[in-house]
Amino acid sequence: MVRGRISRLSVRDVRFPTSLGGHGADAMVSADAMVSADAMVSADAMVSADAMVSADAMVSADAMVSADAMVSADAMHTDPDYSAAYVVIETDAEDGIKGCGITFTLGKGTEVVVCAVNALAHHVLNKDLKDIVGDFRGFYRQLTSDGQLRWIGPEKGVVHLATAAVLNAVWDLWAKQEGKPVWKLLVDMDPRMLVSCIDFRYITDVLTEEDALEILQKGQIGKKEREKQMLAQGYPAYTTSCAWLGYSDDTLKQLCAQALKDGWTRFKVKVGADLQDDMRRCQIIRDMIGPEKTLMMDANQRWDVPEAVEWMSKLAKFKPLWIEEPTSPDDILGHATISKCHNRVIFKQLLQAKALQFLQIDSCRLGSVNENLSVLLMAKKFEIPVCPHAGGVGLCELVQHLIIFDYISVSASLENRVCEYVDHLHEHFKYPVMIQRASYMPPKDPGYSTEMKEESVKKHQYPDGEVWKKLLPAQEN
Amino acid sequence: MVRGRISRLSVRDVRFPTSLGGHGADAMVSADAMVSADAMVSADAMVSADAMVSADAMVSADAMVSADAMVSADAMHTDPDYSAAYVVIETDAEDGIKGCGITFTLGKGTEVVVCAVNALAHHVLNKDLKDIVGDFRGFYRQLTSDGQLRWIGPEKGVVHLATAAVLNAVWDLWAKQEGKPVWKLLVDMDPRMLVSCIDFRYITDVLTEEDALEILQKGQIGKKEREKQMLAQGYPAYTTSCAWLGYSDDTLKQLCAQALKDGWTRFKVKVGADLQDDMRRCQIIRDMIGPEKTLMMDANQRWDVPEAVEWMSKLAKFKPLWIEEPTSPDDILGHATISKCHNRVIFKQLLQAKALQFLQIDSCRLGSVNENLSVLLMAKKFEIPVCPHAGGVGLCELVQHLIIFDYISVSASLENRVCEYVDHLHEHFKYPVMIQRASYMPPKDPGYSTEMKEESVKKHQYPDGEVWKKLLPAQEN
Repeated sequence: MVRGRISRLSVRDVRFPTSLGGHGADAMVSADAMVSADAMVSADAMVSADAMVSADAMVSADAMVSADAMVSADAMHTDPDYSAAYVVIETDAEDGIKGCGITFTLGKGTEVVVCAVNALAHHVLNKDLKDIVGDFRGFYRQLTSDGQLRWIGPEKGVVHLATAAVLNAVWDLWAKQEGKPVWKLLVDMDPRMLVSCIDFRYITDVLTEEDALEILQKGQIGKKEREKQMLAQGYPAYTTSCAWLGYSDDTLKQLCAQALKDGWTRFKVKVGADLQDDMRRCQIIRDMIGPEKTLMMDANQRWDVPEAVEWMSKLAKFKPLWIEEPTSPDDILGHATISKCHNRVIFKQLLQAKALQFLQIDSCRLGSVNENLSVLLMAKKFEIPVCPHAGGVGLCELVQHLIIFDYISVSASLENRVCEYVDHLHEHFKYPVMIQRASYMPPKDPGYSTEMKEESVKKHQYPDGEVWKKLLPAQEN
Repeated sequence: MVRGRISRLSVRDVRFPTSLGGHGADAMVSADAMVSADAMVSADAMVSADAMVSADAMVSADAMVSADAMVSADAMHTDPDYSAAYVVIETDAEDGIKGCGITFTLGKGTEVVVCAVNALAHHVLNKDLKDIVGDFRGFYRQLTSDGQLRWIGPEKGVVHLATAAVLNAVWDLWAKQEGKPVWKLLVDMDPRMLVSCIDFRYITDVLTEEDALEILQKGQIGKKEREKQMLAQGYPAYTTSCAWLGYSDDTLKQLCAQALKDGWTRFKVKVGADLQDDMRRCQIIRDMIGPEKTLMMDANQRWDVPEAVEWMSKLAKFKPLWIEEPTSPDDILGHATISKCHNRVIFKQLLQAKALQFLQIDSCRLGSVNENLSVLLMAKKFEIPVCPHAGGVGLCELVQHLIIFDYISVSASLENRVCEYVDHLHEHFKYPVMIQRASYMPPKDPGYSTEMKEESVKKHQYPDGEVWKKLLPAQEN
């Protein structure tokens, strides 16, 4: 049963120095830089080493450094420190249950999101959880339509990321109190209650409350069987772990070989920085995986529209299933094949304009479960398969709940559906994702799966955690 | 000549308690609240009184309170404290010249924008101004495409507002060093140099560098005459000062009568909260201004698409020239007649989709002069008249430069063109706008006109300025 009044909200800036491998690799050439290489080894090498071992135990020590250096680089984000604004809310219920929520960021700017979470805090504090979830639409709108704060959004950028972190924590708290993982909370929820969580503002020309209810009621048929199926087989995933930009060809081959051995059948490759380089890397992967397995491409917003057309005509021979974010995420008429967008209004138009063939939800860019529900329902109405964005910090942990719910209660189909997976930083979470036979196995622990290990948070808090205390002086030199 | 290295960047959170009139008005019923009414009188009454006097010297004291109470309320932003993140940059040139830039906000959340400005500061500090303006496109892209920071945008929301504030300060500094107002700096600038300020990323499918150059070169013809004309007659304005939501009918009539007396011929009315109320207020205004004068309407994103259609079919009989922001600013396919958007990519699509008949630039939501240039040029290509958004804090001061430049060097037409004007808070600026015969007279002081009076900044800094030190304890009670 839902209980307690929100008595505390804290938010921390947690950063993992994923860009530093690069500095470390460069470091070998100068004495000065050796300091930062050392710092990396003592602070974070275990983390990266662990992460790498599960992906590719066979890679040589040298390859590990260069792979780690580029672990997350793409054509637009060349030096990310995977980070999170980490929100914890507590109640006065004295049951020891905390709601933990994150939004994912790339390092710099996390402090801006933290600042925005604090600006939203007064909407959460001293509220009864019962009142929040009893009128979740109203609460959602309060957060997103604050008469002063909405000016610096609305429902986009920093403020919307902060909204997601706060709401993710509320959903985690709610699910934990109910003793269920979020996906199961959603699956068991009455369709009317589900609909009451959604803000239909700006989307009623495409999806009304009645439409949503009808879809959810139809989704009740066969639900039990699909739940059983999910628990037995999991939700199909694809891997982005082996083809970031900047991997050497040898590393790419080794990682790809290992992934094939681990049972992966779908692979995503980052493209967009250099056409010749893309052609060579795509050729290597296609040769290794053979003509039957699936290859996706992601340009991370690198191109203008004419450039995208030209570039993709060259890459078409490698038979990609999709090209992801070829251009600006704001460019609806630029016809992305798959796109992660910042709110339901953008998704609505992409569907209206028939501008995408796959739809990519994001657990932190959209306003948590609430806004994702509206997008899942619109996708169902247009019969567009949803293939979530994941990776980063905790995105896999969060989005598995949404996509498993989608299959059981909304789409009832696995055709052309697949959820991204990146084997990275899961070791910092108390309830990390479980992948079996290239599928997400439904989590069983109550909550939304992004409670972090307190030790990890403390170590990686920016700028005062142990990791950064060592790294920052070295970086400044 | 351009000179100096940026040696200092400071940013302050400046808020004007424009929402407090409302509290003051309510205050009369309780002893507690009298404190806040008193506080308002001592802190800000002079400001609001001054502002009101110029608009309507005839209004009674009571009417002044209620008018002030609602001075800036619309259907979505019901209690704004007009505010600014105020950036000042200094150089080591020892000439005493500072660049001042703002972005406009509504109170809460200004601290988030301030935080984002600080996150951008390292891109500006220690740069030679010569190098910045020598490769302004590169500098613009550095600010907007920072590999880590762009994740929390890109080019939208908090980060883009912060970018605007920083770049507005750079333009102010540049123009002051050249001894020219920004509009004149632009008018005198070689077309190639102008084009080098623009980032064409994501818009080349509609506007290439060559297109831009061609438009600007054509704009050279007749430039001298148009400049003379502007200096003599100014740029046509319309007033939003008299028809905010919540004015009593008496106040509305008095303000409207005074505006007619002052020579205004174009009037904007806020709509969207209550249809019956809108009908009555539109009737009053149309009756007063007669059938020939121009009436515009602004719904401030209040409606869903079907609602907008229904509502406007009822308001059509008052013959509005346009309906502004009927729905979400992200809804390109929702067919706004006029829209203020967050970046050039959204404007590009609105033009491509023929979704607007007027285009509304904003000096603080877009990335300063640089991004506004690209939008002015695209509007010219599609032959859509530009009618800027203004009001707020300093928006009139800024945008006059852009629109005067547009007339002289780009559009060469005044047909269907008119720039918003709101008579509010100008007294805090060192170089306030000058309105004559309902037109913006071109500013003559060097710079971008948003240097604030230091005394105003100090008094209104949040939360430590004199005004807030008095108000905040009263609000907490």
